Amino acid sequence: MMRELLLIGIGAGDPDHVTIQAVAAINRFDVLFLVTKDGTDELVALRRAIVARHRTTGPYRAVELADPPRPWRDAPDYRAAVAHWREQRRDVWGAEVRSELADGQTGAFLVWGDPSLYESTLAVVAELADDTITYDVIPGVSAVHALTARHRIPLNRVGRPVLITPARLLAGGLPDDVDDVVVMLDAGTAFATLPPDGLTIYWGAFLGTEDELLIAGPLGEVAGEIVRVRTEAKQRKGWMFDTYLLRRER
Amino acid sequence: MMRELLLIGIGAGDPDHVTIQAVAAINRFDVLFLVTKDGTDELVALRRAIVARHRTTGPYRAVELADPPRPWRDAPDYRAAVAHWREQRRDVWGAEVRSELADGQTGAFLVWGDPSLYESTLAVVAELADDTITYDVIPGVSAVHALTARHRIPLNRVGRPVLITPARLLAGGLPDDVDDVVVMLDAGTAFATLPPDGLTIYWGAFLGTEDELLIAGPLGEVAGEIVRVRTEAKQRKGWMFDTYLLRRER
Ligand SMILES: C[S@@+](CC[C@H](N)C(=O)[O-])C[C@H]1O[C@@H](n2cnc3c(N)ncnc32)[C@H](O)[C@@H]1O
Ligand SMILES: C[S@@+](CC[C@H](N)C(=O)[O-])C[C@H]1O[C@@H](n2cnc3c(N)ncnc32)[C@H](O)[C@@H]1O
Repeated sequence: MMRELLLIGIGAGDPDHVTIQAVAAINRFDVLFLVTKDGTDELVALRRAIVARHRTTGPYRAVELADPPRPWRDAPDYRAAVAHWREQRRDVWGAEVRSELADGQTGAFLVWGDPSLYESTLAVVAELADDTITYDVIPGVSAVHALTARHRIPLNRVGRPVLITPARLLAGGLPDDVDDVVVMLDAGTAFATLPPDGLTIYWGAFLGTEDELLIAGPLGEVAGEIVRVRTEAKQRKGWMFDTYLLRRER
Repeated sequence: MMRELLLIGIGAGDPDHVTIQAVAAINRFDVLFLVTKDGTDELVALRRAIVARHRTTGPYRAVELADPPRPWRDAPDYRAAVAHWREQRRDVWGAEVRSELADGQTGAFLVWGDPSLYESTLAVVAELADDTITYDVIPGVSAVHALTARHRIPLNRVGRPVLITPARLLAGGLPDDVDDVVVMLDAGTAFATLPPDGLTIYWGAFLGTEDELLIAGPLGEVAGEIVRVRTEAKQRKGWMFDTYLLRRER
């Protein structure tokens, strides 16, 4: 008894960021697992559209996995809460994978951006894998690279490092020894709380989609505009996906 | 008079990491600019092979740009040396672009991995652009994502940051506040100089190619093996491309 799972990175918004390797994988699976949760119908629809566009090998079965409620970002012990949420996912997904895939069949998850970056799908699948379930990872274009491409800027400066960080670690400001910081998973507008001196921001929301928004400039000059544009877009769409690079001049 | 330049990310080794957007761009250019330098014939050949495989819109002109000699990594002022090297490139490339592209034509550079990450091509093109030369960037799968996909590991841990750094900044060890560090541009074996306690390494060389090498484990246990395998491969091929993630357990 052997089953295979593919974690397919699909890029972070632009359906044309799908790779040739991802297209091959999209043509190879028997079952598509779709993780659903409130307010993400648009993301599920986008995954189905990507498959519809690139699959030429005939019909497939889609299985929806209802996502257990996510832990609150301000939970007292956020890491423990996430660990518990992952256990629930592992049990539910494991049961579904075992019952939906026959011997020799392949299932797939289409993972936003690159599967390694701020995604729990890979960790969950690694945990549910056993002697009868193998898995493989297909890398994708992450929101980090989508951001820099749309602003047409280098991510790093010559000979210098780059930090990628969740917004909640930004409260203390930029670290001393890194001058280029990419911020993801910002539930609010953490950039607006920083002393703006010497900082340039390159901000992008809904990158690669029809709703894409791009604003760049000295943080002190554009922070207010970004907050305004972001609030308005979030209200209009009901959700928000944004990433930004903070660059410090020395 | 208008000319257009495309900086096309092609992925970091596996030709199937090319995106649909990159394929469209490969079918759209009139002139392919190929940067040549000693010892990289294999990389130039790979670029030509990628175009041959994906281009269906007919013949194109290829123009080779001989690269000025690179500054030494241990130059007394490395950043100034790189800046001078970039000026030379800007002047040579600018002249070639102006003479090789007619009004309305499009030229392309195929850039390794993602064009924003430890690449000077984008900075050079941004400098040579003017009223008559526009440019666009097409993101790609970087070596960072190729590495984690092949090891099938998350890049970050839950709620934690990731640092991407050139090896020369690793001399002082890992920073205190970051436990996941991706090292690129290592001319030697910087990992072997670190106190290995608590560190796991995920190492990959020639990722995505037929020469791919993968080794992972506690740094103290596998560092010697990586040094051996790396030295042997470098001797055999005449060059080396490796990337690794150092992960600290707390
Ligand atoms: C759960 S993480 C997934 C990241 C994804 N795996 C990647 O490689 O980009 C979601 C975060 O990615 C960023 N993101 C993803 N897609 C984006 C887009 N199209 N535009 C802007 N930011 C995006 C945002 O910071 C968002 O909070
Ligand atoms: C000049 S940088 C270019 C990086 C590229 N733009 C990217 O996004 O991956 C070259 C460095 O990238 C890494 N690299 C590129 N391709 C690689 C591969 N196939 N395997 C391992 N490392 C690679 C190595 O660290 C190498 O020193």
